[in-house]
Amino acid sequence: MLPVITISREFGSGGHSIGKAVAEKLGIPFYDSEIVEHVASESGFAKDFIEEKGEYASRLSQLFGGPLRATPEGNEQDKIYKIQAEIIKKVAHEGPCVIVGRCADYILEEEDLNVMNVFIHAAEPFRKKRIMLRYGQNGIEIEERLKQKDKRRKTYYRFYTDRQWGDYHNYQLNLDSGYLGEDYCVELICKTAEKMSK
Amino acid sequence: MLPVITISREFGSGGHSIGKAVAEKLGIPFYDSEIVEHVASESGFAKDFIEEKGEYASRLSQLFGGPLRATPEGNEQDKIYKIQAEIIKKVAHEGPCVIVGRCADYILEEEDLNVMNVFIHAAEPFRKKRIMLRYGQNGIEIEERLKQKDKRRKTYYRFYTDRQWGDYHNYQLNLDSGYLGEDYCVELICKTAEKMSK
Repeated sequence: MLPVITISREFGSGGHSIGKAVAEKLGIPFYDSEIVEHVASESGFAKDFIEEKGEYASRLSQLFGGPLRATPEGNEQDKIYKIQAEIIKKVAHEGPCVIVGRCADYILEEEDLNVMNVFIHAAEPFRKKRIMLRYGQNGIEIEERLKQKDKRRKTYYRFYTDRQWGDYHNYQLNLDSGYLGEDYCVELICKTAEKMSK
Repeated sequence: MLPVITISREFGSGGHSIGKAVAEKLGIPFYDSEIVEHVASESGFAKDFIEEKGEYASRLSQLFGGPLRATPEGNEQDKIYKIQAEIIKKVAHEGPCVIVGRCADYILEEEDLNVMNVFIHAAEPFRKKRIMLRYGQNGIEIEERLKQKDKRRKTYYRFYTDRQWGDYHNYQLNLDSGYLGEDYCVELICKTAEKMSK
């Protein structure tokens, strides 16, 4: 049986597209914003709100460096985290799949499952160019967006896992999509997942 | 043409053996302690001394956290670093090869070369077991050795590069040899090197 594949990624590295292509190629479910739907139906929160709070540290707590829990926003974020974690465990136990972001590598660590954690990153020029092509924004906005998104993902991950986002200890495969190319990353992850089938 | 492959590795992860097997499979030169020979002939220092000072921060400066340069030992370490860096650049320009450790990823960064930086790591139980099998030491010694070796490599790397050892930004391929297995790591690196030929 194929492993459950979690994908963490720097913003603009193509991690989402790579994960989607891996899932399609292997014929297994893909979960990214799909998880939001489940969380919405279980929590009653709006999808946009979950999308934002389910992977990014809120701006306020990040700016002041205080614990997220000290604000009502933090309490809601905690609630979303818990529901999301339960959903991630549930889908992972249903069978092999690809899960993007949301601390899935940490959440599944203690589960009795074959999990392969992948981290995708790329040099800044590559990521800027990719975002330009996809979203057509100007240079300054992109730079700011890159920094903010990664910082908030990092802070979110740190808060809930007490680990460092991107730390090599937590990933079995850590790939530079800028150097390797998206297609080859897909090929490499699929091949490795097949190899690691148990 | 194949890229120059640098391999950084946690102690006990099998990085040396993996690098050697990659070089053999690709039919390109392999440099690990081989570099020591060159440094010895150019510096006049003894091989053991270079082996120690060419990749590990000296114990004294590490313990007190002071700069390596403040001691005569530090000055010698600097001299070895410089000669070693020149040798690494020289062999890399001669053609595709595998270079293990010695900040080669950093040293070659500004060179006009196709360089693929690989980092090999593994969970502690795997590394302990591997060292036991190879060196037959007892559990306590191994634990201490693992910590010391990695700490001194990390400190050495930090001192000369001002970067963090193992930081994903600096590697195109970061592999968990404990999960993936040594043979598959070799296969993966060879396949990727061939793919990245220019």
